[in-house]
Amino acid sequence: MDLQIPKGTRDLKPEEMIVRGRIANTLKEVFEIYGFSPLETPVFERFDVLASKYAGGSEILNETFRFKDQGKRELALRYDLTVPFSRFIGMNPNMKMPFKRYQIGDVFRDGPIAASRYRQFTQCDVDVVGCKGMTAEAEIIALANMAFSRLGMDCLIKVNSRKLLNDILDYCDVPKAKAESIIIIIDKMDKIGMEGVEKELSKEISRKSIEKIKETFSIEGLNEQKLEKLRKIIRKSEGLDELEQLLKYLNLINSGVSVDFSLARGLAYYTGTVIEVFLRDSSVKSAVCAGGRYDKMIGNFLGRGEYPAVGVSFGLDRIYDAYVEKKKSDAKSVAQIYVIPIKALDEGIKIAEELRKAGIKTDIDLNNKGISKNLQYANALGIPSVLFVGEEELKSGKLKLRDMKTGEETSLTVKELVSLERL
Amino acid sequence: MDLQIPKGTRDLKPEEMIVRGRIANTLKEVFEIYGFSPLETPVFERFDVLASKYAGGSEILNETFRFKDQGKRELALRYDLTVPFSRFIGMNPNMKMPFKRYQIGDVFRDGPIAASRYRQFTQCDVDVVGCKGMTAEAEIIALANMAFSRLGMDCLIKVNSRKLLNDILDYCDVPKAKAESIIIIIDKMDKIGMEGVEKELSKEISRKSIEKIKETFSIEGLNEQKLEKLRKIIRKSEGLDELEQLLKYLNLINSGVSVDFSLARGLAYYTGTVIEVFLRDSSVKSAVCAGGRYDKMIGNFLGRGEYPAVGVSFGLDRIYDAYVEKKKSDAKSVAQIYVIPIKALDEGIKIAEELRKAGIKTDIDLNNKGISKNLQYANALGIPSVLFVGEEELKSGKLKLRDMKTGEETSLTVKELVSLERL
Repeated sequence: MDLQIPKGTRDLKPEEMIVRGRIANTLKEVFEIYGFSPLETPVFERFDVLASKYAGGSEILNETFRFKDQGKRELALRYDLTVPFSRFIGMNPNMKMPFKRYQIGDVFRDGPIAASRYRQFTQCDVDVVGCKGMTAEAEIIALANMAFSRLGMDCLIKVNSRKLLNDILDYCDVPKAKAESIIIIIDKMDKIGMEGVEKELSKEISRKSIEKIKETFSIEGLNEQKLEKLRKIIRKSEGLDELEQLLKYLNLINSGVSVDFSLARGLAYYTGTVIEVFLRDSSVKSAVCAGGRYDKMIGNFLGRGEYPAVGVSFGLDRIYDAYVEKKKSDAKSVAQIYVIPIKALDEGIKIAEELRKAGIKTDIDLNNKGISKNLQYANALGIPSVLFVGEEELKSGKLKLRDMKTGEETSLTVKELVSLERL
Repeated sequence: MDLQIPKGTRDLKPEEMIVRGRIANTLKEVFEIYGFSPLETPVFERFDVLASKYAGGSEILNETFRFKDQGKRELALRYDLTVPFSRFIGMNPNMKMPFKRYQIGDVFRDGPIAASRYRQFTQCDVDVVGCKGMTAEAEIIALANMAFSRLGMDCLIKVNSRKLLNDILDYCDVPKAKAESIIIIIDKMDKIGMEGVEKELSKEISRKSIEKIKETFSIEGLNEQKLEKLRKIIRKSEGLDELEQLLKYLNLINSGVSVDFSLARGLAYYTGTVIEVFLRDSSVKSAVCAGGRYDKMIGNFLGRGEYPAVGVSFGLDRIYDAYVEKKKSDAKSVAQIYVIPIKALDEGIKIAEELRKAGIKTDIDLNNKGISKNLQYANALGIPSVLFVGEEELKSGKLKLRDMKTGEETSLTVKELVSLERL
């Protein structure tokens, strides 16, 4: 039989899973510190929910895995966690608001395979529903700052407002019908620079509009200075008011952020603040966390009411790539101690169980191998210590513990070992 | 729009997820204590892998969700974690053996919907590959004992051997061709009793065979007594040798188990030891953990070599049902403290951030609600304490912390609060 794994997917071996687990746990801890609670939705949804016009849009839908159940119902694997979350709120409109949840789960896209692009990948989402104000955004940005700080990563959080972008385009006399495509061009500012943007815009809008766009998007300075300068040009703007409010909250708690007027984000469902997080000093150049405010999706699902919502999604796979760049880990096993019985299997089994009862992650030779094969095994798996259990050791009551890196050996009783490992 | 969740699936709300997370963490901890390392395979597999004749069998295949990717490849959602694991070993035959892994993941079956039977459910698997001896079984049984003990559940672990069952049927002169169907009948012993079994057997095999079956399956006593009595009847049996060896190891570490000659387990892939775990004092009557030895699947996948393997799967959903029976939990939020600013939002935000920086799970009113609405909110979510931040409190430097259960109030500084919560 020709064994294969599905195209675009992969197995995550222990050496990867140990590190991924560490990252996911850090995120989970920080999410909970900020008062977000866990929620889980199914891996698949009804196709009509994912295809709703208020959801992800046609591009993402082309990359959706579809199938039917025995009752011929149209289903599909989820392509993100935001649409299922909105469906959940839609079906549970009486949840106590604001409702703050996190979800760590796999999402699926049947797209072209590129380097480090997979058809199954992991998103870690936090969302607040039921809060209009910038207090929610401030909390999410503070949370992202703490998350990357705890991961030992230096991050740059960019923020902007879709409302402000629209106000700027109004000021620049860009026709409403063109707004969407102009925003997509402006979003490329970081990649192709002002010159590139100007070139693309010249095919779409008037010279006069382009000059006004250049004027606004060339504004430089610290966050507050930028907002002040822009205020002088466009005057009234709800988006600008909101960004000012957000900066005020972030200043209170010393949480860093960088205002970037050209930031737009692709997805159609964003209505206000948009957020993207990048890493400094990393070969990972794409955003490692991104999101924004989507005040209309849930209300539209329900056909009534207002359900303001805002959230971001952390990309576990990209964060993992950046993390291992810095901190290589060779452990292929979680075990702290590997017990090697020398003609004393019964005693070895007893001692292993004693260590385990004390909560120490312990492995033991199950196959009665020789000493050197056992040492090779522990070494290959990156287990830090081995414990020899032989006749001599049993007589003296002292076991030999060998540090696999230094080769150093210590003689000690099981009790001593337990208190040592607990430190 | 008519919002619906796919039939047979469910959303897991925070109050459920908080408890499920606690159970999954306990299992994960115990798995690692026994030296099992995490591995993750994709949620879907190639259909030909799941449909292989050495895998789950035709019954399970009828309940498999199937679909195609854009390249028209036949795929399917996994129905268990064992077959994907065998596929992994088949594709990575040079992993250091023995290889011990755990995987916690969702599996999918497109079957009829019954009470508490879902189309997506969670399995928590541990498997050892590359160990023929009973040391592996002993380790897995000790692990199950520790897991349920840490969960505060009293469990009964039943064990038997498929090899022994075959030897018994030989002794009873049951024709080889009938063995499979006779085993299925005998497996019902617990449910329908010896009388029921006898009635069903009478349609299949001779009176003489039935008498011999009654003789062997009526053996009673402690584990060792049972084995001795059976030994006198059937004499040579590799399955019996193995069970004796297993009991010897388990006695060394005082790990309880109960030998049950009628235990068979449905799946075709088991070749030796079979294990099922039940809970005492619970309304959950089905096995909460089960598995066994499947020495042939991996080798057959590869078409060569021997890859002995043994493992069990913990059913998270059933364990959850049994767990909440005993320990009701009302918390709908992970937050330990809910901050209520009284005309002091800015100060409230600062204090919440201080608590969060100290690692305390903190929530705060994001919407400028009144005091009584805030108290209702904290109460509805089951958050244990609220912290009032008002002018008066800020002047004195002492904040009022209210215990939401007792109503008791304490005045304390932020520093005092941090050291209190850390206890």
